[in-house]
Amino acid sequence: MSRRAVDLIAKKKEGLSLQKEEIEFLVNSYVKGQIPDYQMAAFLMAVYFRGLNPEETANLTMSMAYSGETFDLSEFGFILDKHSTGGVGDTTTLVVLPLVAACGGKIAKLSGRGLGHTGGTIDKLESISGFNTELSETQFFKQVKELGVVVAGQTKNLVPADKLLYALRDVTATVDSLPLIAASIMSKKIAGGADGIVLDVKVGRGAFMKDIESARDLARLMVKMGNHVGRKVTAVISDMETPLSLASGNKLEVLEALEVLKGKGSKRLRELSLVLAQEMLYLAEIDAPLEKVLQEKEAYKVFEELVSYQGGDLSQLKLEAAYQKDILALESGYFVDADALQIGEIVCELGAGRKVKEDSIDPDVGVYLHREIGDKIQKGEPLATVYANDKDLLNNAIERLQQVLIIGDKPSLRPVVYEIIRDEDLL
Amino acid sequence: MSRRAVDLIAKKKEGLSLQKEEIEFLVNSYVKGQIPDYQMAAFLMAVYFRGLNPEETANLTMSMAYSGETFDLSEFGFILDKHSTGGVGDTTTLVVLPLVAACGGKIAKLSGRGLGHTGGTIDKLESISGFNTELSETQFFKQVKELGVVVAGQTKNLVPADKLLYALRDVTATVDSLPLIAASIMSKKIAGGADGIVLDVKVGRGAFMKDIESARDLARLMVKMGNHVGRKVTAVISDMETPLSLASGNKLEVLEALEVLKGKGSKRLRELSLVLAQEMLYLAEIDAPLEKVLQEKEAYKVFEELVSYQGGDLSQLKLEAAYQKDILALESGYFVDADALQIGEIVCELGAGRKVKEDSIDPDVGVYLHREIGDKIQKGEPLATVYANDKDLLNNAIERLQQVLIIGDKPSLRPVVYEIIRDEDLL
Repeated sequence: MSRRAVDLIAKKKEGLSLQKEEIEFLVNSYVKGQIPDYQMAAFLMAVYFRGLNPEETANLTMSMAYSGETFDLSEFGFILDKHSTGGVGDTTTLVVLPLVAACGGKIAKLSGRGLGHTGGTIDKLESISGFNTELSETQFFKQVKELGVVVAGQTKNLVPADKLLYALRDVTATVDSLPLIAASIMSKKIAGGADGIVLDVKVGRGAFMKDIESARDLARLMVKMGNHVGRKVTAVISDMETPLSLASGNKLEVLEALEVLKGKGSKRLRELSLVLAQEMLYLAEIDAPLEKVLQEKEAYKVFEELVSYQGGDLSQLKLEAAYQKDILALESGYFVDADALQIGEIVCELGAGRKVKEDSIDPDVGVYLHREIGDKIQKGEPLATVYANDKDLLNNAIERLQQVLIIGDKPSLRPVVYEIIRDEDLL
Repeated sequence: MSRRAVDLIAKKKEGLSLQKEEIEFLVNSYVKGQIPDYQMAAFLMAVYFRGLNPEETANLTMSMAYSGETFDLSEFGFILDKHSTGGVGDTTTLVVLPLVAACGGKIAKLSGRGLGHTGGTIDKLESISGFNTELSETQFFKQVKELGVVVAGQTKNLVPADKLLYALRDVTATVDSLPLIAASIMSKKIAGGADGIVLDVKVGRGAFMKDIESARDLARLMVKMGNHVGRKVTAVISDMETPLSLASGNKLEVLEALEVLKGKGSKRLRELSLVLAQEMLYLAEIDAPLEKVLQEKEAYKVFEELVSYQGGDLSQLKLEAAYQKDILALESGYFVDADALQIGEIVCELGAGRKVKEDSIDPDVGVYLHREIGDKIQKGEPLATVYANDKDLLNNAIERLQQVLIIGDKPSLRPVVYEIIRDEDLL
């Protein structure tokens, strides 16, 4: 193999496959600062055009996963994790984690913050007063052992290659490369100690993947790659044309997750959460009556324990937005559409999200829909409520929402889950 | 237009065309250090894959040409220049410049140094004792005015964009992109003040372009682009399967050029020089009997004046290699082949060239062929002479040459010039 970065860039540029050692050399040298950003940028653009085969993607993933510290949680049994490619009103993690834990699954999850129109689990959890997401490695391990479920923010020592590469991709227009997306996601899951990973690959206007074909390609690639590197992986392709749940906004979404954990709340959020939980239990080879666990509030109790273990206080949880205003239906009919991207942007504008990484967020603002897509509504009934802390932002949000929330005369329904891709489906 | 580099990278990556202002923004911001190398590297790789259309290439060329100082030589009339894409034994500049000047053409040429297996005019001229290639702008202008012909090294203030971009392309595997090559060549010629440019596009084993199609694409692109930017351009596609002249090595090539200027020497060097000179005169609309000018040594006299004007002393010019050794023909027949790339590498190894830019060169070493391709030779006659300053290097060169110099039983001839592409051919 060549030990000159320029030769490896040229090799990929010409459409040849890189050997394991060559990919390791690139990743390790880059993390050590021995390969400059400009060479890595050229390499990433060559990868955008030429792609990586599944073996190269697996090698890139493992090189990245082992570029820093890794968590070895093997003493605690089969460790589960889930990952969503990002959506609006997508608060499944807060439902799925306690649900799976209540059935005996062990979950160690490292989550991210929101960026742009998509939310992040860490932001949502931090809207619970006192909830600590910055756990030390020792705390993280202790909680897996004692409680069987933990969720924390990314630590800075895990997967430094991904942090560097992601920042570089962001400014060199090389984000939208399937193998690079797959390697970024999977390297973090593997470094975090997961044995079984359920991926929620979103597709639609509010998702990174706009069409089912590219979502399927990404899903299949990650499942195949998981197999390559000895992890059990299932991918669920789910709809992100419209927001997943009734609630979009940090505290609003926590409250909505609590509703689902009490057996009520958004039907679509509940449906997808059950599918994801089912797939996690399948990977862990656990058989459990999920609906019953939800209905009897066992998952709710685990969520309370999780919050309290991490220092949070659910009793303090209530919306404190200065302004709240209803949007009434202007006609009778069916609620037929709400563009998830637009809702995500409106909620972000209200202050619930970050336009750039450095922005701070407002936990109390957001949009609550009083109907799910497909539901009937009568003229004059409230279709949505906007929560805001600024009058201008409130008015802007209402104006935009009136364009985005569509009432029609025939119900239009879209499935929540399009496909489930298990490892054995690809053999 | 967008003023964010990442958006322009994305635009090119998606195969869209960039506007004039967008290309100017990229080039100017990069030269000012406002766009980092990693973004330019990603852009260059996107250009490698997506290409640039002739208008984009013209805009890139002009943005680069005007990225620093430019020479305005318009007061001296129609200024000619020539450029070779680089070859072995390719010393046409030393023949063509005095030949065209002797016919009344005005020539202002900025030349480069050799790198790798290809030679550079500046290195050759510096093998003439005292010859000064580092002229100030004032000296350069004065010589155009007084002598009508000047040749100097690139000044550091001309086309800074090309220096930066070339260095970046070299380490990011983005050298072999036709529009980038074309822009690099043409921006330097335009900044140097040329109105009429004759391009010698080499094709074959010893050339950057290995096949006639890519050579033709590059040639047509540069001619078309010249038209876009108001310059008259002709491209000559010439053979570089074998060394152009009998001599390869700096002082050897100067001596060989002098032979041609005296009406003797390498037939192929003479033939190509006449074609290039003819095309330069055609662009300048000068009608002159080139063969006669050569035969009557008028061009030789101009070369003497040129050398003496720039401080050189031709009377001191003789080979001073410590070792010289003949390679004898092992059989009788025809001299049928000599791989130009291999000869170029052998000569470079002897010390005549640079492996990396920082290497110094040895003017006295090289290889002289006693036959041109197609000539008859008898067993025992000298086929080549190697000039070296190191015994080991001498022996290595002889060993390699014995594999490279091929005698066969039928003469094989290749044309010197494949095609001449004038502006009007592309209308």
